[in-house]
Amino acid sequence: MQVIERGRGIGIGLIGSGFMGRAHALAFRNVGGVFPLAVQPRLEILADTPEQRAIEAATSFGFARATGDWTELVRDPAIDLVAITTPNRLHAPIALAAIEAGKHVYCEKPLATTLADAIAMEGAAKAAGIVTMVGFNYLKNPIIDTAREIVRSGEIGEITGFRGIHAEDFMADPEAQFSWRCEPEQAGGALADIGSHILSMARSLLGEVESVCGRLDTIHGERPLPDGSRRAVGVDDQANMLVRFAGRPFTASISASWLASGRDMQLAFEISGTRGALSFTQERFNELRFYKTGQPTGRKGFTTINAGPAHGDYAAFCPAPGHQIGFNDLKTIEVRRLLDAVAGKAPSDADFGDALMITRVMEAVRLSSQRQRWVALSEIDGALSSRSQ
Amino acid sequence: MQVIERGRGIGIGLIGSGFMGRAHALAFRNVGGVFPLAVQPRLEILADTPEQRAIEAATSFGFARATGDWTELVRDPAIDLVAITTPNRLHAPIALAAIEAGKHVYCEKPLATTLADAIAMEGAAKAAGIVTMVGFNYLKNPIIDTAREIVRSGEIGEITGFRGIHAEDFMADPEAQFSWRCEPEQAGGALADIGSHILSMARSLLGEVESVCGRLDTIHGERPLPDGSRRAVGVDDQANMLVRFAGRPFTASISASWLASGRDMQLAFEISGTRGALSFTQERFNELRFYKTGQPTGRKGFTTINAGPAHGDYAAFCPAPGHQIGFNDLKTIEVRRLLDAVAGKAPSDADFGDALMITRVMEAVRLSSQRQRWVALSEIDGALSSRSQ
Amino acid sequence: MQVIERGRGIGIGLIGSGFMGRAHALAFRNVGGVFPLAVQPRLEILADTPEQRAIEAATSFGFARATGDWTELVRDPAIDLVAITTPNRLHAPIALAAIEAGKHVYCEKPLATTLADAIAMEGAAKAAGIVTMVGFNYLKNPIIDTAREIVRSGEIGEITGFRGIHAEDFMADPEAQFSWRCEPEQAGGALADIGSHILSMARSLLGEVESVCGRLDTIHGERPLPDGSRRAVGVDDQANMLVRFAGRPFTASISASWLASGRDMQLAFEISGTRGALSFTQERFNELRFYKTGQPTGRKGFTTINAGPAHGDYAAFCPAPGHQIGFNDLKTIEVRRLLDAVAGKAPSDADFGDALMITRVMEAVRLSSQRQRWVALSEIDGALSSRSQ
Amino acid sequence: MQVIERGRGIGIGLIGSGFMGRAHALAFRNVGGVFPLAVQPRLEILADTPEQRAIEAATSFGFARATGDWTELVRDPAIDLVAITTPNRLHAPIALAAIEAGKHVYCEKPLATTLADAIAMEGAAKAAGIVTMVGFNYLKNPIIDTAREIVRSGEIGEITGFRGIHAEDFMADPEAQFSWRCEPEQAGGALADIGSHILSMARSLLGEVESVCGRLDTIHGERPLPDGSRRAVGVDDQANMLVRFAGRPFTASISASWLASGRDMQLAFEISGTRGALSFTQERFNELRFYKTGQPTGRKGFTTINAGPAHGDYAAFCPAPGHQIGFNDLKTIEVRRLLDAVAGKAPSDADFGDALMITRVMEAVRLSSQRQRWVALSEIDGALSSRSQ
Repeated sequence: MQVIERGRGIGIGLIGSGFMGRAHALAFRNVGGVFPLAVQPRLEILADTPEQRAIEAATSFGFARATGDWTELVRDPAIDLVAITTPNRLHAPIALAAIEAGKHVYCEKPLATTLADAIAMEGAAKAAGIVTMVGFNYLKNPIIDTAREIVRSGEIGEITGFRGIHAEDFMADPEAQFSWRCEPEQAGGALADIGSHILSMARSLLGEVESVCGRLDTIHGERPLPDGSRRAVGVDDQANMLVRFAGRPFTASISASWLASGRDMQLAFEISGTRGALSFTQERFNELRFYKTGQPTGRKGFTTINAGPAHGDYAAFCPAPGHQIGFNDLKTIEVRRLLDAVAGKAPSDADFGDALMITRVMEAVRLSSQRQRWVALSEIDGALSSRSQ
Repeated sequence: MQVIERGRGIGIGLIGSGFMGRAHALAFRNVGGVFPLAVQPRLEILADTPEQRAIEAATSFGFARATGDWTELVRDPAIDLVAITTPNRLHAPIALAAIEAGKHVYCEKPLATTLADAIAMEGAAKAAGIVTMVGFNYLKNPIIDTAREIVRSGEIGEITGFRGIHAEDFMADPEAQFSWRCEPEQAGGALADIGSHILSMARSLLGEVESVCGRLDTIHGERPLPDGSRRAVGVDDQANMLVRFAGRPFTASISASWLASGRDMQLAFEISGTRGALSFTQERFNELRFYKTGQPTGRKGFTTINAGPAHGDYAAFCPAPGHQIGFNDLKTIEVRRLLDAVAGKAPSDADFGDALMITRVMEAVRLSSQRQRWVALSEIDGALSSRSQ
Repeated sequence: MQVIERGRGIGIGLIGSGFMGRAHALAFRNVGGVFPLAVQPRLEILADTPEQRAIEAATSFGFARATGDWTELVRDPAIDLVAITTPNRLHAPIALAAIEAGKHVYCEKPLATTLADAIAMEGAAKAAGIVTMVGFNYLKNPIIDTAREIVRSGEIGEITGFRGIHAEDFMADPEAQFSWRCEPEQAGGALADIGSHILSMARSLLGEVESVCGRLDTIHGERPLPDGSRRAVGVDDQANMLVRFAGRPFTASISASWLASGRDMQLAFEISGTRGALSFTQERFNELRFYKTGQPTGRKGFTTINAGPAHGDYAAFCPAPGHQIGFNDLKTIEVRRLLDAVAGKAPSDADFGDALMITRVMEAVRLSSQRQRWVALSEIDGALSSRSQ
Repeated sequence: MQVIERGRGIGIGLIGSGFMGRAHALAFRNVGGVFPLAVQPRLEILADTPEQRAIEAATSFGFARATGDWTELVRDPAIDLVAITTPNRLHAPIALAAIEAGKHVYCEKPLATTLADAIAMEGAAKAAGIVTMVGFNYLKNPIIDTAREIVRSGEIGEITGFRGIHAEDFMADPEAQFSWRCEPEQAGGALADIGSHILSMARSLLGEVESVCGRLDTIHGERPLPDGSRRAVGVDDQANMLVRFAGRPFTASISASWLASGRDMQLAFEISGTRGALSFTQERFNELRFYKTGQPTGRKGFTTINAGPAHGDYAAFCPAPGHQIGFNDLKTIEVRRLLDAVAGKAPSDADFGDALMITRVMEAVRLSSQRQRWVALSEIDGALSSRSQ
């Protein structure tokens, strides 16, 4: 009988224990069993308010300690990496404090509630040389890795079109309650909340955005509060955009809506090339519809590929095709890439710089909607370049 | 044994015998067996060039006479209705001549190759009081009739979103040959050729367009000629549009592309309302995906409805659900509505006025793309109003 | 202007004007416009009872004469071909009379209500040397022609499995009324009524049946009559079969049910080979799902092929892929093959001999269900061989 | 800052570290973060041969100790529960030893390689009063929990039909190598290996099997060995069955094949009732197609339900619908139910008794195939009842 020795590992401090806090915790627990890691994560401290909530979450998720004060967590010497899953407006102060304390930072999207904050955070992280990761988890899907390879390798020829959407229906009912998602100061709105996912997906496939022409609509101008009164909604319910990418000859059509009745998770796109096409929806995210020209006469059509060991990180979860990974597994892949970046094995594939680019695009869409004209990303760069002065 | 007496019926003159000419001929032959008609069509004259082609087509389609000269057909006293399936640039002269001769006119889309021609045709038809029909056949689909009823009745609540596309791939290969479709004078381009279908579909569901912001892209700037030389393409390969409809609170996203590799006939849309949604694609045009809020907990989802006798004109083709109608049957429905209009039973549901509205929208999209800004349809109305002076 | 001369053509006498009578009439009207024919059909006499119904149908379908007495039709010298769409129990007497009169016969399925009748009809037709066709229309689907070619050419290797079903729900409600379909003397029952379709489909793909092991279930033993009383059901609601085909190494699984709630037209199969597979459902009968081994790593999957001009007779209806044919078009193809057989261009692909083979298989299934054991088709051959003595 | 106290928990000994060993390890690691547990599992010992492999697996999965000798693990006082993921022939000796040592047992399917062993294991477990669980993980799917509720509650009326399959293609190539799966002594064959899944699924929905009529086919009689020689295959490639369930009025059709080219994981069924139907495939196991009679005219169809918090244990993984769980999550649910059973909170829902019933059904299918007739389960009961004497 051999007793297994374990290293100290990397100390994880998790702030927040809601939907995303739980997903982070599960991923940190699970990742070592799924992937061979250079360093194992150690679940050190969980912070939430009130403290009792933190204690309960720490107990069930397996953290060693709990606190009601996130500043305590950020300062703790046992912590190497701070994971932020708090309300959006706290992202900036916590991240900046963590960076100042020399911790690596894993932050849920959106990076910040203002472009200025996002710029500050990106600058601070770069200056400190710490590793960052932002939770654009849908990009971690193994079959999306394959989609990216297909696009980049030229397997479907030159790309000539892209049409994408992120549609859900959780605000489709005009009587759905007013929440933080309805406040611009909280980075609410369909564009920020879910549009950021399809924009980051498009960017990961097609490269940087060059210009946009967008239109934001607030269809339901008021929503009820718990006390029965109504409050004006300050954000968009829906965003429709024409988007140009640097060096690409076509205009993409991209939409986001949280009014799309019947849709739970339609993060979907179709990308066309001169020699093929890809069609994907997160509703069936273990599938990729693939078309390649040159099929024999009478055998033309889209092929439905099931995710399997041939695709990205799938094999780490299951050696057999068609068994499928789940949403939480996407988060496990994200955490693996984060830990690899911390270990210096590979750069972060979704760092604060990437998140800042998405923030800029959204800012450009808002400006375009106000001015009712096309806006180049370089118009937004004014704000960016001012930071380096 | 009873001998069946038949009336003289309505004399049909068909000009053109290609894809659409044949579809018209089949529809005129078939319609009397499918629908109870006030007057039966009589296949009188088929015109095409050269005359030999007309003779062969008349023989196989069942026309009584054939000619190589369409003016002869238009003038013939046995002709009551002229069906035009010629190259687009002939639509205007033939239609105007037919109207002048007092014939009813059934014209394939696009109505004309210029807005001025379209205006002239619409004006002449109205002045002459003849019946017109333009071949937006996809609107005749029985399940689309149901979709319209669902939208109009409020069954899915107030409409809050629309996303539509018409994508095919017949020009996806950069080496696909230059053809009349590549010439603006022939009303070529993805917007005119197929975008007109999704625009007419959107209009039939949502009403008149108010303003547009569009972008036309010519991805493949040159295409080969049969002799191996290359010719510059003067039309769009792809059109992406943001569209506002009169009295609607949302922005629609509409696209057209003939570069969409792998797509044979993706004329598709999703329409969202506060209490439900519809999703449709011509690729499976005997199906409608229908969502309605209020399903019991745990039973929420889109229902896939198969076309059946409960939907529009389906029952005329088959008394059992799920048996499916085909493309040519859509044309038969179109001809039935045309003949009903001629018989005075119901107005034409796609007359020159309707086609003119689509022509105006496309004109607005072109202007918007040139000026890179939103264009109101009323800006196009200048041209329209000038005709009445 | 050229006047088109027309030959006398082949005189059609149609008996019955219900669902199938109408489908026959439409097909005869339409077929000459769709296909180049050696001889055109001439709609001569329509028979139905009462005569008034025949007159109305003849008027709307375009027949020259009408009668209430089918024997008059069968004897008429202007009739070359008799099409039978009457209740099943009349198939045998009408067909035998028509054969005796030297007419070609086109008969709806089932061929007869007893095996003995089917044997007699097949024998008489063969002896008379007339052309016969039985209405297994689903086999005429262009994409099914492609499926057959794929199976026969070895494109998917040696066939190793087949699983098929025909499921509908028109009797799913235990309170669905008793009708002729519930009477064995009318050749009622799920096996005969719809099971015959999947059996003929399987046979057309795999060849002759060798032995069967089946089980027939009558789930709802009584059904209501219009007067509110209840009558015992004498036929099966459901048939499940294990089937062996001559020279094939595998056992097929085939089912038929008219209790399949929610199913309008699930005539479906999957056929597996050592190098590929096909999956089909009549619910989307313009599609064929096709799998072929040897796809590149990570690109494996079923390809959804849309019916197009590359498949069988599709091109005669439409030159563009993805436009789709409908149920009535299947009947048009059937009539075209019938007329080609009459013209001596090709043998009938579904003659009385083919229908007799299906009748024998159903007889074997019934015997197997009674005896609760496997039954070889050769056991049924006793009845067959007795006829030639 | 609060330090979290943890109890001793339940000591887990895992034997085997392949596909299933890994899945067990992940589930034990993960389960405490997902579900609130009465007692937490403690990853105590991992056994595999050679020992080095055990050490590596223990290190990556997080076990405290490793051994090359499973008997050591079984005897270890720190072990409360033994998880068996070894080759099938070791299931019986290990399980019997573990039961003798008073440990709870979690065993992968198939329970044993012979019916006699299965009977002995079931008897020993019952006598010892320990908790058992067998790995029919597909039954743990939250949407399958919903399917069961729908069937049991009568929501779709009286059940009138069932058609099921488990098809994969990993042996479709005739040149796929001979392996333990080709040996009957290893409980190989399509029926045992994958057919057991669809049989257990059917049983969980419909209750106990009463009689069967099956046919096993060995299509590829020889397969190559690594050295290039060929060895005769002693098991079935394909099983097709007619199945009757106690108290059910219909015959089910159930198939299993590992020759189904193109299929990765088609564990699929359709269940029909007098007032609705369910259709499911493991290929999209976060979806359930649901049909209910009584929809308004023209709105009839199957509804595609996405798994969400309203379904079974889904909410424990994710609070939002449509996000999807993965294969490993099914295993986590299984382990949760195992640990709840150990804690006395609920009985095991797939114990050795359940697995024995499936073993009996498979034995009856084999007997039926040999004798080419129906076999009642009571014929197999002879063997069972002998044990209690």
